[in-house]
Amino acid sequence: MKTHPFYQKILKRHQSCQNYICVGLDPDFSKLPAHIPHSIAGLFDFLTAIIESTHDICIAYKPNISFFEALGIDGLQLLERICKKISQYNVPIILDAKRGDIGNTSQMQARYLFDYFGADATTLHPYMGRDSLEPFFRYKDRFHFVLALTSNPGAADFEKQQLASGQYVYEKIYTSCVEWHKTYQNIGVVVGATQEELTYIRKLSSELLFLIPGVGTQGGDYSQSVQVGKNQDDLVIINMSRSILYASAAVDFASSARSAIQST
Amino acid sequence: MKTHPFYQKILKRHQSCQNYICVGLDPDFSKLPAHIPHSIAGLFDFLTAIIESTHDICIAYKPNISFFEALGIDGLQLLERICKKISQYNVPIILDAKRGDIGNTSQMQARYLFDYFGADATTLHPYMGRDSLEPFFRYKDRFHFVLALTSNPGAADFEKQQLASGQYVYEKIYTSCVEWHKTYQNIGVVVGATQEELTYIRKLSSELLFLIPGVGTQGGDYSQSVQVGKNQDDLVIINMSRSILYASAAVDFASSARSAIQST
Repeated sequence: MKTHPFYQKILKRHQSCQNYICVGLDPDFSKLPAHIPHSIAGLFDFLTAIIESTHDICIAYKPNISFFEALGIDGLQLLERICKKISQYNVPIILDAKRGDIGNTSQMQARYLFDYFGADATTLHPYMGRDSLEPFFRYKDRFHFVLALTSNPGAADFEKQQLASGQYVYEKIYTSCVEWHKTYQNIGVVVGATQEELTYIRKLSSELLFLIPGVGTQGGDYSQSVQVGKNQDDLVIINMSRSILYASAAVDFASSARSAIQST
Repeated sequence: MKTHPFYQKILKRHQSCQNYICVGLDPDFSKLPAHIPHSIAGLFDFLTAIIESTHDICIAYKPNISFFEALGIDGLQLLERICKKISQYNVPIILDAKRGDIGNTSQMQARYLFDYFGADATTLHPYMGRDSLEPFFRYKDRFHFVLALTSNPGAADFEKQQLASGQYVYEKIYTSCVEWHKTYQNIGVVVGATQEELTYIRKLSSELLFLIPGVGTQGGDYSQSVQVGKNQDDLVIINMSRSILYASAAVDFASSARSAIQST
């Protein structure tokens, strides 16, 4: 895995930034600083200012495609421009899309995220099993974060159900990812930071890279998540969205975003 | 449920068409009739001809958003035009998108599918649980098909695992949908036609509407799927994509699509 281009990039950026922070880009008109116009141009200026202010002190950006989709095709054109902007600074892009379908459809989804938007990594729904994920894994130079345990209350409904084998559903998915990773060497998992189970799941294997959401506004603790979530290479990705993006509702929003990262 | 606008529309169309066929729209350059140019304009003409030839003898269309996404933003503009074309004929649109995320993200996804594309229904990944699905269910006048049991081999990996309670994972999801439907009255499930379990799951509840893929090219049998899959109102939706869309690789593709429906 250490030779994987995304993994290498993240390792290198951690060495230079000395943190594990991935900045989630979830553009939302209702949360913008008051002076930013509620338009695509306004969002472009807002996100560009955030990127210009933070690109040297974070290890990745995670645009959430759904927030762009909600704005229709104009929003997707904005996402295209934002991905190009991030690439100018050579920061890895985790395009959070939570895809996964039968094989030939997954193939189409992978094309969209990797070939069209040029994402370095994405997030995947595991429910439909191995053959729904493999068209992604076969993009060998990209990285694939499979949902294992999420940070929302609904995680109790299915993810945390115990199987007849004694394993939990999320654990079965996690151990499957550990297995598949042996073949593909490009699989990580999404594990919610607000979960006690983070400690448990890390002990099951020290290899896979964790993408941990739910830190900041959602209530997870950064230092604790880093401590518990790091893998054998002392690497982990901690996503923070709203607490950085909307750190200030005033004209100083970009410098406040930078300060929010630095004070984490 | 009988008063729900989508359900009513489907019931009414079944009465007029006397079949249960939903035509899946999965545009794929590699499968087009030879004379159709490999361009967005070519796909528009192809899909328009299919719709004009079949709109009076099918109960719904199911565009698979991933096949449009694979073509980038041009593909999504094509989807927009295709959705408008279908609406002209007042045929229900099941926009197959397999979404689902934490609550505020699901809200964005719902906006995209329902407000932007004007879909009547969609498909959802259940993995993240109730609060990931409710932003969809709250679109009361739309219909929501939750993945329960899919027709691909990977269904064995997680969906068919048995829980400590004795239920299978897909069964837990199905019975949860039955419960949630009591509140929302707009929930259906996706159940694979190649599965023996179709019979089993139908017996657990006679109410929910099934969307059954996997008939035709994927190997499921239409009549058997109808027989086993119908709910208490004698309603079921059977999706067929490739066997209709690509029924002929010659200039008669549109009339062949019509014949493929009529001979099913």
